[in-house]
Amino acid sequence: MTIRFGVLGAGRIGQVHARAIASVEGASLVAVFDPMEAAAEAVQSKYGCDIRSLEAIIAADDIDAVAICTPTDTHADLIERLSRAGKAIFCEKPIDLSLPRVKDCLKVVEDTGATLMLGFNRRFDPDFEALHAAIAAGKIGEVEMVTITSRDPGAPPYAYIQVSGGIFRDMTIHDFDVARWMLGEEVASVQAAASVLVDPKIGELGDYDSVNVILRTASGKQCVITNSRRAAYGYDQRIEVLGSKGVASAQNTHEANIEIATADGYQRPPLLNFFMTRYTAAYAAEIAHLVAALTNKSQPRTTGHDGLMALALAEAALKSVAEGRTVALTEVLA
Amino acid sequence: MTIRFGVLGAGRIGQVHARAIASVEGASLVAVFDPMEAAAEAVQSKYGCDIRSLEAIIAADDIDAVAICTPTDTHADLIERLSRAGKAIFCEKPIDLSLPRVKDCLKVVEDTGATLMLGFNRRFDPDFEALHAAIAAGKIGEVEMVTITSRDPGAPPYAYIQVSGGIFRDMTIHDFDVARWMLGEEVASVQAAASVLVDPKIGELGDYDSVNVILRTASGKQCVITNSRRAAYGYDQRIEVLGSKGVASAQNTHEANIEIATADGYQRPPLLNFFMTRYTAAYAAEIAHLVAALTNKSQPRTTGHDGLMALALAEAALKSVAEGRTVALTEVLA
Amino acid sequence: MTIRFGVLGAGRIGQVHARAIASVEGASLVAVFDPMEAAAEAVQSKYGCDIRSLEAIIAADDIDAVAICTPTDTHADLIERLSRAGKAIFCEKPIDLSLPRVKDCLKVVEDTGATLMLGFNRRFDPDFEALHAAIAAGKIGEVEMVTITSRDPGAPPYAYIQVSGGIFRDMTIHDFDVARWMLGEEVASVQAAASVLVDPKIGELGDYDSVNVILRTASGKQCVITNSRRAAYGYDQRIEVLGSKGVASAQNTHEANIEIATADGYQRPPLLNFFMTRYTAAYAAEIAHLVAALTNKSQPRTTGHDGLMALALAEAALKSVAEGRTVALTEVLA
Amino acid sequence: MTIRFGVLGAGRIGQVHARAIASVEGASLVAVFDPMEAAAEAVQSKYGCDIRSLEAIIAADDIDAVAICTPTDTHADLIERLSRAGKAIFCEKPIDLSLPRVKDCLKVVEDTGATLMLGFNRRFDPDFEALHAAIAAGKIGEVEMVTITSRDPGAPPYAYIQVSGGIFRDMTIHDFDVARWMLGEEVASVQAAASVLVDPKIGELGDYDSVNVILRTASGKQCVITNSRRAAYGYDQRIEVLGSKGVASAQNTHEANIEIATADGYQRPPLLNFFMTRYTAAYAAEIAHLVAALTNKSQPRTTGHDGLMALALAEAALKSVAEGRTVALTEVLA
Repeated sequence: MTIRFGVLGAGRIGQVHARAIASVEGASLVAVFDPMEAAAEAVQSKYGCDIRSLEAIIAADDIDAVAICTPTDTHADLIERLSRAGKAIFCEKPIDLSLPRVKDCLKVVEDTGATLMLGFNRRFDPDFEALHAAIAAGKIGEVEMVTITSRDPGAPPYAYIQVSGGIFRDMTIHDFDVARWMLGEEVASVQAAASVLVDPKIGELGDYDSVNVILRTASGKQCVITNSRRAAYGYDQRIEVLGSKGVASAQNTHEANIEIATADGYQRPPLLNFFMTRYTAAYAAEIAHLVAALTNKSQPRTTGHDGLMALALAEAALKSVAEGRTVALTEVLA
Repeated sequence: MTIRFGVLGAGRIGQVHARAIASVEGASLVAVFDPMEAAAEAVQSKYGCDIRSLEAIIAADDIDAVAICTPTDTHADLIERLSRAGKAIFCEKPIDLSLPRVKDCLKVVEDTGATLMLGFNRRFDPDFEALHAAIAAGKIGEVEMVTITSRDPGAPPYAYIQVSGGIFRDMTIHDFDVARWMLGEEVASVQAAASVLVDPKIGELGDYDSVNVILRTASGKQCVITNSRRAAYGYDQRIEVLGSKGVASAQNTHEANIEIATADGYQRPPLLNFFMTRYTAAYAAEIAHLVAALTNKSQPRTTGHDGLMALALAEAALKSVAEGRTVALTEVLA
Repeated sequence: MTIRFGVLGAGRIGQVHARAIASVEGASLVAVFDPMEAAAEAVQSKYGCDIRSLEAIIAADDIDAVAICTPTDTHADLIERLSRAGKAIFCEKPIDLSLPRVKDCLKVVEDTGATLMLGFNRRFDPDFEALHAAIAAGKIGEVEMVTITSRDPGAPPYAYIQVSGGIFRDMTIHDFDVARWMLGEEVASVQAAASVLVDPKIGELGDYDSVNVILRTASGKQCVITNSRRAAYGYDQRIEVLGSKGVASAQNTHEANIEIATADGYQRPPLLNFFMTRYTAAYAAEIAHLVAALTNKSQPRTTGHDGLMALALAEAALKSVAEGRTVALTEVLA
Repeated sequence: MTIRFGVLGAGRIGQVHARAIASVEGASLVAVFDPMEAAAEAVQSKYGCDIRSLEAIIAADDIDAVAICTPTDTHADLIERLSRAGKAIFCEKPIDLSLPRVKDCLKVVEDTGATLMLGFNRRFDPDFEALHAAIAAGKIGEVEMVTITSRDPGAPPYAYIQVSGGIFRDMTIHDFDVARWMLGEEVASVQAAASVLVDPKIGELGDYDSVNVILRTASGKQCVITNSRRAAYGYDQRIEVLGSKGVASAQNTHEANIEIATADGYQRPPLLNFFMTRYTAAYAAEIAHLVAALTNKSQPRTTGHDGLMALALAEAALKSVAEGRTVALTEVLA
């Protein structure tokens, strides 16, 4: 059985998923859509798929699953249309920047019984998967305290920041999802601190570039997330989980696994500094996971609910910063 | 010139300081006092010093400096008496568990012009000093975000917990001091989360065993402190400082610097799991630092003011947990 | 321009190269040959190429380059036939186990002007390439002493050992090539020690399983190679190069980049334990390199001469063990 | 019981041992001798011991053990005189540069029943001891292949090289001893390669600065030693032992346990670059070990025989270089 895919959006991330679909066993790339003709043609010429209109892909009989790689403000609408058209859906996070809109959208997914997988790529990183597997196997006992360090090499363009929904919804959202995955319990309350330390212009745009968040579950488990929009040494992505019997951590990935020692000391190369390079394996694994889920008729690891919860945590963090207090997740989810 | 020392208290930490005094160039151990005769005698026989009464040491003409290694509730009183007697003072933290009492005590120190050095041993750890020196040398640019991980191998006895003032005043207080040192700015506000995950009995005693704290300075620099009263793998002591040009970190110290690889993987020994072993070098360096300060008539690196500020941060953290909000340091210092 | 490939041999390594050819930009897989029909069909069905006879591939107008992935004893013959047919050739090492036969074969390559690239995959490993680039960039000054540690997870089947030409020709040969690459000078003399420590049966077959070799160039640069047919902890592949200004090293690759610390210590996963997994990226890079060389009409990095020299070093090492003396390379090359 | 020590020679290494004796539980420093009055006085003023003549120390009733820290050419003579005087002896390596002289000297030690401990400090390094203990505990199964990397930060003065007996007798001798300790079997044959790469003047003095040695035991276990008189990055001291079930290694010691990451990469400080700093703990442990051995009437870990065997290995290595062949240890020991 082969899962036949359409891809909506042939930009940077659309190309990543097209490549993954073309290379994963059990998947085939049938058609791509992009309003920019040249982008669609590049995918067509590389993988030999059709170029089709949005409507044609949604209506296609020869397409089982569609990857949504279009701008964020189109996600919820496309998810609804594809759900109603009976397609399985892979959608890049977030579903939408508005929590009510996400809820409405997920209602449609639920009513139509569609399969929706959210593109929380980090859950498919081989190192993070190995970390989660070790914890699930009881290697560190009961999980107690999680520390997530996540720093971008540099800030995105101002134009992007303006439509991104802010650092919590755009960047921390990945860490919120990883936190829930590692904690193994829902978060009950959120405390956040936010500063503008990297670029004052980011502050003028109403956003922050340096934040710390403490999450706490009802049973008292905690998670700290530390984010910065600047890391001169590369794309810093680490997870550490303390349990009753020990601690487990996933380390960073360097440009190469070499070390040079001179009179100045021992030097290793900086980190891979681009999320697509850092998470190459994760992007391929995402699609393979969806193919397996569809084949086995199982639920994907990252669902619409995960998208909703991560967004709710972002809202709670924003509220915590604004009001200088601990915010219960129920306040934003109600 | 030799600084002649008396030591008050010949328990575990008193013995550590006695050994440091005996071995440091420029210091000599003149006398020890302890209400437990056997403890004082052990120090006497090892280092050949006198055993004297508390009063005799305070009044002694042949003693320049006194190390206070007695229980916490005697610290403030002894500092005042020694200040008035014209002695230089080394005192283990904290000065007192009550902020008003600390303020009163420091007023006496100020009025008498006494030299008071607080035993914040971590500022004298060679690795942490190297870290601070690298930061001060501009290696990572402007400091932005600090992360301090500090976990004890196990919880102290219940009896100790009951008189300790709680985890923030007893354990986090060291991290508060390190945070101020690394941030290079005073903390303006505190957010804290606290749980009982290690031992319910600790909760019954009104304390916590697992906490996370976010500190924020007026300019927006932040520090996260993560503490646990349990670390199965040893005494976990790490500092990481993110700056505009990079990140600097001090790593843990293992029992030995070896690695064994088998079919099960690569294994290094656990961490040194006792604070006195982990900070052996720091304890000796503390005394050497005080001797140098007294010789050069300079201010010690860790003063009574540092003791006051760390305690105030502990109070603010407690208040943040109790009231579920961000607490300004001015609230507790006023 | 696209380089059109034929693949001879569809076994394990043939499949690796078929996949590389199918995925590399600028290459296309036209046809595969294997006497085992099922093997050829597996490649055909996966990559949509033709199945053709050996003769047809050699004679094909629509094939530019051929990858020889057949048993060692067919290599020299196939290289000669393909050279005469005007094909570019990629051949797995070794060309032949007999030095005179290799010389004859290379004469044909030279006379026909064919391009011959030897499959010394390690020169295309990204970490080793980064190491070599750092050295070439002068990071450690003048190269002086090289240390190569190369240990297989386990010994190959006895049947393979019997036809392998022995550990020096089969296993150390890769290290001889890396040594020459890293030394940047030809080796002048060889000293070797060999033991049977892993499996006495290997000794009964006339081979060794544990060897150390010292190579020395005319200018006095040295290289130590240490090999074992057993490494319980995975496939151990390390290179260290000492220069006048420092030392550079390439480290091993673990199964995952995580670490778990418990009361037993800090544990990382074992090494990747299969050469095809360890050198996945290198296999793809090899083909990409050949495609680039053919496109740019440049010489490939690993030539027939490299194959000859590595084999000569293996002969010299055998001679050194047998005669208990330092053997000049000229003795075996003459 | 206290072991009362005399120290002969108050130079650099004599001071190290005087400090160790003064600080070790169960030892006391009674007297020091040095022809340079100022040197002896420095030790006297620091530790409050007597200054005595050589003869007085040898004859003293109140001295149980004597540490010989005088120039190499006096060692054998002093050992003989002290043996006959009934003293326990700690002697810096080597006993003498002449193998026959060493044999004669050890005959006297044997005849008098004196306790002689050789100063092979590396066997007392805590990391190397932990390594040896792990191996002895069977963690890596049966020992098969040892790799010792030992590089000095820089070459000693020419004057020292001229009287040192050459790199094998002066520098590699430590590694020969460690090799025997780690192999757990006597070495049967030696192969060595030697070059002058660091400083041509060293060659003019008839010595080498860059050597590799392969040792082989009768059962086929092997050890590689790699030495250089130059390591720009510090004092490089590593041991790796491969066994049937895994590999164990002891890593280097850096100036501080910190790491700084910038756009240039991740940088750790260079290694401790002075043998006395690197082996501080080992020097103290040596004396403690001798005190324990004398107290328990057990044999010290490093004996005169160890000194003899390490010197014999140096002779064999020299012979191997000179004659271009594998040299049996029996050839030089006969």
